[in-house]
Amino acid sequence: MEKKPFVIGLDLGGTNSAFGIVDYKANIVERVTVPTGGHGAVEQYVKDCVSRLLPIIEHVGGISQIQGMGIGAPNGNFYTGEIEQAPNLPWKGCVPLAKLFHDALGVPVILTNDANAAAMGEMTYGVAQGMKNFIEITLGTGVGSGIVVNGQVVYGCDGFAGELGHTIIVPGGRECGCGRKGCLETYCSGPGVARTALELMAQTRTESSLRSIVPSLLVSKDVSIAAADGDALALETLRISGRRLGEAFANFMNFCSVEAFVMFGGPVKAGEPLLKHVREAFEENVLPIYKGKAQILVSSLKDSDAAILGASALAL
Amino acid sequence: MEKKPFVIGLDLGGTNSAFGIVDYKANIVERVTVPTGGHGAVEQYVKDCVSRLLPIIEHVGGISQIQGMGIGAPNGNFYTGEIEQAPNLPWKGCVPLAKLFHDALGVPVILTNDANAAAMGEMTYGVAQGMKNFIEITLGTGVGSGIVVNGQVVYGCDGFAGELGHTIIVPGGRECGCGRKGCLETYCSGPGVARTALELMAQTRTESSLRSIVPSLLVSKDVSIAAADGDALALETLRISGRRLGEAFANFMNFCSVEAFVMFGGPVKAGEPLLKHVREAFEENVLPIYKGKAQILVSSLKDSDAAILGASALAL
Repeated sequence: MEKKPFVIGLDLGGTNSAFGIVDYKANIVERVTVPTGGHGAVEQYVKDCVSRLLPIIEHVGGISQIQGMGIGAPNGNFYTGEIEQAPNLPWKGCVPLAKLFHDALGVPVILTNDANAAAMGEMTYGVAQGMKNFIEITLGTGVGSGIVVNGQVVYGCDGFAGELGHTIIVPGGRECGCGRKGCLETYCSGPGVARTALELMAQTRTESSLRSIVPSLLVSKDVSIAAADGDALALETLRISGRRLGEAFANFMNFCSVEAFVMFGGPVKAGEPLLKHVREAFEENVLPIYKGKAQILVSSLKDSDAAILGASALAL
Repeated sequence: MEKKPFVIGLDLGGTNSAFGIVDYKANIVERVTVPTGGHGAVEQYVKDCVSRLLPIIEHVGGISQIQGMGIGAPNGNFYTGEIEQAPNLPWKGCVPLAKLFHDALGVPVILTNDANAAAMGEMTYGVAQGMKNFIEITLGTGVGSGIVVNGQVVYGCDGFAGELGHTIIVPGGRECGCGRKGCLETYCSGPGVARTALELMAQTRTESSLRSIVPSLLVSKDVSIAAADGDALALETLRISGRRLGEAFANFMNFCSVEAFVMFGGPVKAGEPLLKHVREAFEENVLPIYKGKAQILVSSLKDSDAAILGASALAL
């Protein structure tokens, strides 16, 4: 049977659900973004998404042209097609998202962890092409990770491996959405970076443009912009955030001795004022036998392409 | 060509080098142990080992009966047959141990990390039979780890993956043999357990039989024995050590979502006074999606059999 010319990729984040229709040359030919929250039950979320999807599906010739759909979602389980207890999503318990989209669209739907999907996109189309051992770190509402060992994504015994953002780096530290304290993502996700800026506002008397932003509206992008303008408090925020990441990467290296850590997501756009501290802290803290062995790279896939492409690759 | 009936396994530890001659049914038919230190250069170490090995090789009919040799050694590199910068061994730099034993014995020699060898032994003969995802944790002079993902030992891009004992769990903490501070093994290796006992002697006024042992002679076995007699300071030492391990395991779970952690080595012989705290701290600290999923097990291979058998399996 001949394959149909397009697949749908969904990058399901805590804030937004980014859909793309992708051709076989990895071009995202159509896109639509739906807020993840505010729909109530998951059935209504799927209904709302499908009503936004159908018009762009018509643009490529209708559902008969769609081979299938891939979903990258927090706590997405490759084995079952379900999302289970995702701390940053509005639905509790076990959500059979692959089945719901399958029932609504009538095409095969495959689901995995959003960061695993990003790692697949990076390995297929991005800076990790040709690498057999690397870790993709996605910084967004949370901190995700896709771990590739011997060229294969690590799923573990239950499909939920690769939650490095929930490594506890400060016992008894900041409250996390997962119900515990001190997880890496409470320091290095987008909101984590903003929390560090607030902490510095409390601890220091350093003047900063960030002090005139309402805390509930402060995001990591504000920090990046202020840092680019030379704002000392913003630069110190990025230094602390970068060092936390580098120290964590040094510990992760003990696991699987990777060629590279590939960083992806909003906070990474701060660039060198963040990245130089990741590299420095990594090399300062890594076990001597690993020194100089791992590259700290930025994803070459723009915006949410990595996760959309990775998710879509599942359906190919 | 017919296979010869025996293989040699070497478990090379910081303190002792344990050799075994193993048949195809995994019986260790001959053994000899040589202290690892005190030989000077590595060439002399190999010479001294071979002079102790030759008599037991004669017992099984001479070198013509030996198929090959496997070595499990700290920082042993499966890809190159070399040991590189092992912090707990007397030799510095890069040591071509596989080649030296090959030249001395005239049989093929394969080398890997000692903990990777233990994991192979556990998977082939021990409590991890049939498991595809587990982590072997070896507690001895140091803390080693062998990580199995999808039924395969994780070697990483350079052959040095799996150094979980050098995860920094207390930034700026205890001095480690690797030159850094706060590694897991400074708290949970044999000497790490003894260091915790000393710390409690300093911090508390608790009476203890351990206070009458010279610090340079205090070992984890003393702590286990005192704990079995109800010594409060020894029991508190095991509680703290167990919790450190459980907290570390909870973080490791984020990587590869294993079915089990298999613990091996001297300090594990303390039994439930240690293990119950490992289990408790693991379940208290692990990400909710992983709760109740991983077993905390004790190796079913006695003494140094796991590493000898695992190493010998390399040569089969």
